[in-house]
Amino acid sequence: MNANIKDVAREAGVSIATVSRFINQNGYVAATTAEKIENAISKLRYHPKKELRKLSNTKAIGIIFPSIKNPLFSELFTYLEINLKKKGYNCTLFIDNDENHKLEDYISLIFDGQIRGIINSSPLKANKVNYPGIPIVTFDRNLGPNIPLISCNNLDGGFKIAKAVVAKKCKKILILSGNRQDYFPITDRIKGMMRVFNYHDLEIKTAYTDFESSEITRKIQIDGLIKDKKYDAICTTDDITALFVREQAKLINYQPIITGFDGTEFISHLFPELITVRQPTEELANLLVKLCLSQIENYRDNIEKKYILPVKLINN
Amino acid sequence: MNANIKDVAREAGVSIATVSRFINQNGYVAATTAEKIENAISKLRYHPKKELRKLSNTKAIGIIFPSIKNPLFSELFTYLEINLKKKGYNCTLFIDNDENHKLEDYISLIFDGQIRGIINSSPLKANKVNYPGIPIVTFDRNLGPNIPLISCNNLDGGFKIAKAVVAKKCKKILILSGNRQDYFPITDRIKGMMRVFNYHDLEIKTAYTDFESSEITRKIQIDGLIKDKKYDAICTTDDITALFVREQAKLINYQPIITGFDGTEFISHLFPELITVRQPTEELANLLVKLCLSQIENYRDNIEKKYILPVKLINN
Repeated sequence: MNANIKDVAREAGVSIATVSRFINQNGYVAATTAEKIENAISKLRYHPKKELRKLSNTKAIGIIFPSIKNPLFSELFTYLEINLKKKGYNCTLFIDNDENHKLEDYISLIFDGQIRGIINSSPLKANKVNYPGIPIVTFDRNLGPNIPLISCNNLDGGFKIAKAVVAKKCKKILILSGNRQDYFPITDRIKGMMRVFNYHDLEIKTAYTDFESSEITRKIQIDGLIKDKKYDAICTTDDITALFVREQAKLINYQPIITGFDGTEFISHLFPELITVRQPTEELANLLVKLCLSQIENYRDNIEKKYILPVKLINN
Repeated sequence: MNANIKDVAREAGVSIATVSRFINQNGYVAATTAEKIENAISKLRYHPKKELRKLSNTKAIGIIFPSIKNPLFSELFTYLEINLKKKGYNCTLFIDNDENHKLEDYISLIFDGQIRGIINSSPLKANKVNYPGIPIVTFDRNLGPNIPLISCNNLDGGFKIAKAVVAKKCKKILILSGNRQDYFPITDRIKGMMRVFNYHDLEIKTAYTDFESSEITRKIQIDGLIKDKKYDAICTTDDITALFVREQAKLINYQPIITGFDGTEFISHLFPELITVRQPTEELANLLVKLCLSQIENYRDNIEKKYILPVKLINN
């Protein structure tokens, strides 16, 4: 027999309202109480999802992305939508790039019956609680040890890019991050590059241009970095930054090797000479959908917590 | 007192199921029966929406776009999402570019309680029935005389572009449509251009490249059109086609004046020398939201059926 919320409340010696508050993360629960509830949930193998199923007939999966102006996300969304539609689900798309926003606010939409599960790629704040029974899967942002995390092999992508750059005999290299350098998955991409560059006698400079600042600010930042034309190669951490670099370089008649990351169809066709790494967006989307829906139907306990898909170098 | 579906059935002398089938458009209703029901609806001033409101607590507005890989739609969606979020609604995004698909299939999602209203920009098949009481608003695609249609001033956009091209003393001009030429709003853009070009002694050729074909096919098509380098200006009907033209022209060292249409921030920053027309995406989104929500709260009878927002020439 399956435990319900009443059983959990009884076992933990607290009210149903408190358990609900704990699960929904929508109110204060003292640390000692939270521990009692966690123990009760764990002992009774309680899964709120079983109750969720009764709450709503919604067929919507909540997709939380930091932006869809970036072609990586519009391509990924397109594949997610095709795949979910085939399985009878709709996509409710939230654009959220605010690190102060909480995952719980989206989880409460599941309890409200607005969505059935979550596919996330926004830098949201998540509690240490594992959100038992809530169908969540995340791409590129770590939401905690128990929520399945999917990404491409960013480390290997950086590695492949750097090998291509070294093969072109570049000596002076600017690594230009499209975001803060401590921001996952940028870190892994740069780490991958450095594993190659460190083995060679090269002059490496790193810098970053803030993705969140206005496009004009980014252009000024890039212009300041490249105006001396001293780099043989400029290795960026995403294709959009690479495109900006190309545009600014063109204005000063400067043609360094430029590398990007993501390799969407849109960018590859606009910028065919770009050295980049293709994220397997279709496979990523299929896996995200599979893991999200399998949590709606079954339990998260049975699935792996980390998935890394291979990347492909695009080097014309 | 408000009429309900029973009153309509009694008035029309048909079953409730038949009225429901007529309203939902999910089954066969004979033409004569449809006319009886239409008359009954009209006489009783029946609005199915009043019943819809009880069906569901969903906060989702269905947004139907042909693509989000086109920056126009990703920019428009971003503004729609911001605006709807402020008003307490979520966005369920459907990607659909199939002209054989029916608007009714999306309307049935309203009756299923999956969405509350529809903001459409896909080339869907719509019946002549006016979908009384169903909150729908459409951008750039005509769904029938009673559904509010919003677009930018495509005619004036074409006009402004052509004036800019003539001012640059171009004599030989290729008008390159990014889609079939009979496809709204392409038609109006070209019409606007011709109003200017026809007043001057110019050599005009028109051609089109099919948006739906693969990017490689489009490149081959474009290459065939421009390889003689004989045009002073190439006027496309959207910025993406303009970007493709620039890339192909670059390969053969050819620098004609290139014009686009849409003027999204994304493209304007990547291709700053592009002459284009900016669609007022933020204003378009705000109006689409306002008209959709006002139908959820009130009735469509009270609102205008056609809205044309002004455009701005971007000519650096």
